[in-house]
Amino acid sequence: MHTTIAEMIRLVGSERVLHEPEHLLTYGFDGTACLTGKAGCVVFPKTTEEVAAIVRYAAEHKIPVVTRGSGTGLSGGSVPSSQCLVLCLVKMNQVLELDEKNLTVLVEPGVITQKISELADSVGLLYPPDPGSIKISTIGGNVAENSGGLRGLKYGITRDYVMGLEVVLASGEIVFLGNKCVKDVAGYSIKDVFIGSEGTLGIITKILLKLVPKPSARKTLLATFSRMDAAAETVSAIIAAKIIPCTMEFLDKITIQCVEAYTQIGLPLDAEAILLMETDGHPVVVEEEAIKIEAIARSCGALSVQVARTPEEAGRLASARRAAFSALARISPTTILEDATVPRSELAGMIRFIQTTAEKYQVRIGTFGHMGDGNLHPTFLTDENNHAEMERVEKAMAAIFDYAVEQGGTITGEHGVGLAKKKFLPKALGTASLNLMRQLKRTLDPDGILNPGKIFD
Amino acid sequence: MHTTIAEMIRLVGSERVLHEPEHLLTYGFDGTACLTGKAGCVVFPKTTEEVAAIVRYAAEHKIPVVTRGSGTGLSGGSVPSSQCLVLCLVKMNQVLELDEKNLTVLVEPGVITQKISELADSVGLLYPPDPGSIKISTIGGNVAENSGGLRGLKYGITRDYVMGLEVVLASGEIVFLGNKCVKDVAGYSIKDVFIGSEGTLGIITKILLKLVPKPSARKTLLATFSRMDAAAETVSAIIAAKIIPCTMEFLDKITIQCVEAYTQIGLPLDAEAILLMETDGHPVVVEEEAIKIEAIARSCGALSVQVARTPEEAGRLASARRAAFSALARISPTTILEDATVPRSELAGMIRFIQTTAEKYQVRIGTFGHMGDGNLHPTFLTDENNHAEMERVEKAMAAIFDYAVEQGGTITGEHGVGLAKKKFLPKALGTASLNLMRQLKRTLDPDGILNPGKIFD
Repeated sequence: MHTTIAEMIRLVGSERVLHEPEHLLTYGFDGTACLTGKAGCVVFPKTTEEVAAIVRYAAEHKIPVVTRGSGTGLSGGSVPSSQCLVLCLVKMNQVLELDEKNLTVLVEPGVITQKISELADSVGLLYPPDPGSIKISTIGGNVAENSGGLRGLKYGITRDYVMGLEVVLASGEIVFLGNKCVKDVAGYSIKDVFIGSEGTLGIITKILLKLVPKPSARKTLLATFSRMDAAAETVSAIIAAKIIPCTMEFLDKITIQCVEAYTQIGLPLDAEAILLMETDGHPVVVEEEAIKIEAIARSCGALSVQVARTPEEAGRLASARRAAFSALARISPTTILEDATVPRSELAGMIRFIQTTAEKYQVRIGTFGHMGDGNLHPTFLTDENNHAEMERVEKAMAAIFDYAVEQGGTITGEHGVGLAKKKFLPKALGTASLNLMRQLKRTLDPDGILNPGKIFD
Repeated sequence: MHTTIAEMIRLVGSERVLHEPEHLLTYGFDGTACLTGKAGCVVFPKTTEEVAAIVRYAAEHKIPVVTRGSGTGLSGGSVPSSQCLVLCLVKMNQVLELDEKNLTVLVEPGVITQKISELADSVGLLYPPDPGSIKISTIGGNVAENSGGLRGLKYGITRDYVMGLEVVLASGEIVFLGNKCVKDVAGYSIKDVFIGSEGTLGIITKILLKLVPKPSARKTLLATFSRMDAAAETVSAIIAAKIIPCTMEFLDKITIQCVEAYTQIGLPLDAEAILLMETDGHPVVVEEEAIKIEAIARSCGALSVQVARTPEEAGRLASARRAAFSALARISPTTILEDATVPRSELAGMIRFIQTTAEKYQVRIGTFGHMGDGNLHPTFLTDENNHAEMERVEKAMAAIFDYAVEQGGTITGEHGVGLAKKKFLPKALGTASLNLMRQLKRTLDPDGILNPGKIFD
């Protein structure tokens, strides 16, 4: 590693290479519980050419390269493998072009996603993907993980907004995939292979994103339910009424109690479920939809429905959902946030299954998530030092993933596979599909230097 | 080929195998001018298992397999290679499931796209992609070509509605990629590789499509212009006003004259350009947007703006655009419909370049297309038996593609590469990008049996 460190210093300068143990420690983990690793060194390139030079060196010497941004990932995707070279792209943080005529923005991977959101907003446009980590995560990480967020049902996910990518391949070669055309069918969509590939196929160094006109109005509703099924029925009935809200977020009883203890918003502690719903668009449409949503929730048996009258009130209601993870994380030493996902029609069954599984294995699970997407976050409240409990957590988690897959769902809706989910992947995908992925990995990274051990071995 | 024919008859029965010369003739071409081929036999499987058995036989004996549906393609993608086995999927034409709860429909590849559109409509939903060939093309062909259509700007293209695919691989193995989840990040998005792969990577045997709620209102406007630039400015100004119409279709002077001669709609023969625009959604929004669109068109110098008052009138206006290709095709023995595409901001320049190129090479080009998408259809009106003219057509076409690529555009917005565009592909994509595609092809079809010679050699 000494030679590598010297070479990295030669390539980018000593002020952009970290190799002291105390520095490496802080780059040894990401947002995932119970996973750590130790890199050989951390390098902060500022240009695509620097990335390419680093990767060429790594390729020549078969040194593993683990790319990361802010390290907010929830599947261990950026946890360093032993003696690897960590490529930290946070200094590639420039917005290169905002093209209002074509509704695109070209950015470097280290730009914080919130900054893109604010930039779009400042010119009357919207960058819809809004992962929970939006204030701190980088767009490069969002693309590498194909991040979701709260607006998935109506607006889609990160993939839907990526028009082009500059990628440094495992060989060190630089390629630009895509362009500003709304339509382009010249050859295979290789771009889509890199989106969500978790740093295992190439290193994303520029991103061309699509923006959309900003909706001119928004309305927020919060409904409480004494029965889980009534909340699930409300979601189904809203969609059956041909309304696609931009958010339909769900909190279960444990989450409600934790959020209320943390925020004192005034949530009813006896409620079994809360739905936070937002509709956006033209003021007239938003008004009509809000009235219909309220009526549907009441007819499905909601205990209460609050409709925010001001942006401040809307913000207060929405904070109940935004605070969910932090509120749950306060309760116990270790918080494991999962993202089992099912087709929307299977949501009620999935939530019931999570609850009975928690009872069966005597573990605490608070569940919240994106109800319109079928994307739930069963969150295990545990202690990684309690080995007996951790074994039960593992079993409960496996049971939940099995059930999700049996219902036509997936083991990860938005967090990625990384290290945390890879043992569940074969069952989720089946042999044929997994073989295709392995073939693709071997084709694009024949020496296996890019983020080795992530997604599969 | 005798052994192959016998084996095909054994696999599916003699009534589903064609091999007489007069039959093979009718399967020797698709919708593309000047391209023909001759298959060894044509097979009509009815099930995925039959497709898999046929492909296994072809793989074992290294026989080329060319898959097709209705054969409406415009880049020669389904023109048979010599002595190949044509796999015609029109008898796999069942709608397998309409899932209103999850807003999905599962279909076989031989279903006519219009049927899916009508089925969705019958339950208050919309399948947005609407390629010009919608009444006769199959959904399998649409997915294989990643077809576009008139609503691309607002609703996207075929890829955006494919949630899952069953694919028979070159080995004969069957794999299902994707599911009904709105969010799924478990591994690479292999599904996206097959969409738009033009039958060169696998054979699509089932398709899971996403549907959306049907907009409750629609308004159609037709604006005429004495200057091309005024039409282009209108498009830019509408989008700058944060309005995204569902269609913004353009006809140039030659096309206007041909359409009027053909349909007698009453189009002004002195107009340089016509824009056909449609807005859809909530009635109030549609009404407001139509008023704004009309005002913008007038302020940009439109000669006239007609707003349809009834669905019949809207249909009459829209027929001007729908008739464009047929009207142009009447004029000359050979009609070559191209789909050069540029970022929207470069449209005016692109249209001017097409006009000067037509003058320079003394060829007739009628141009129409999807203005909101930057997706133009310069249509060459020529005669394939006039060799001198065809040489000039080739030169003009090459100049147009070069210009499109220089402007950050593409050689094909929605027709695919097939045989017709493959010589232009290296310049459009660059070496690194093309190498990735070749690698992918070799990985998924190592013996090169699937639609050989299409996209690249």
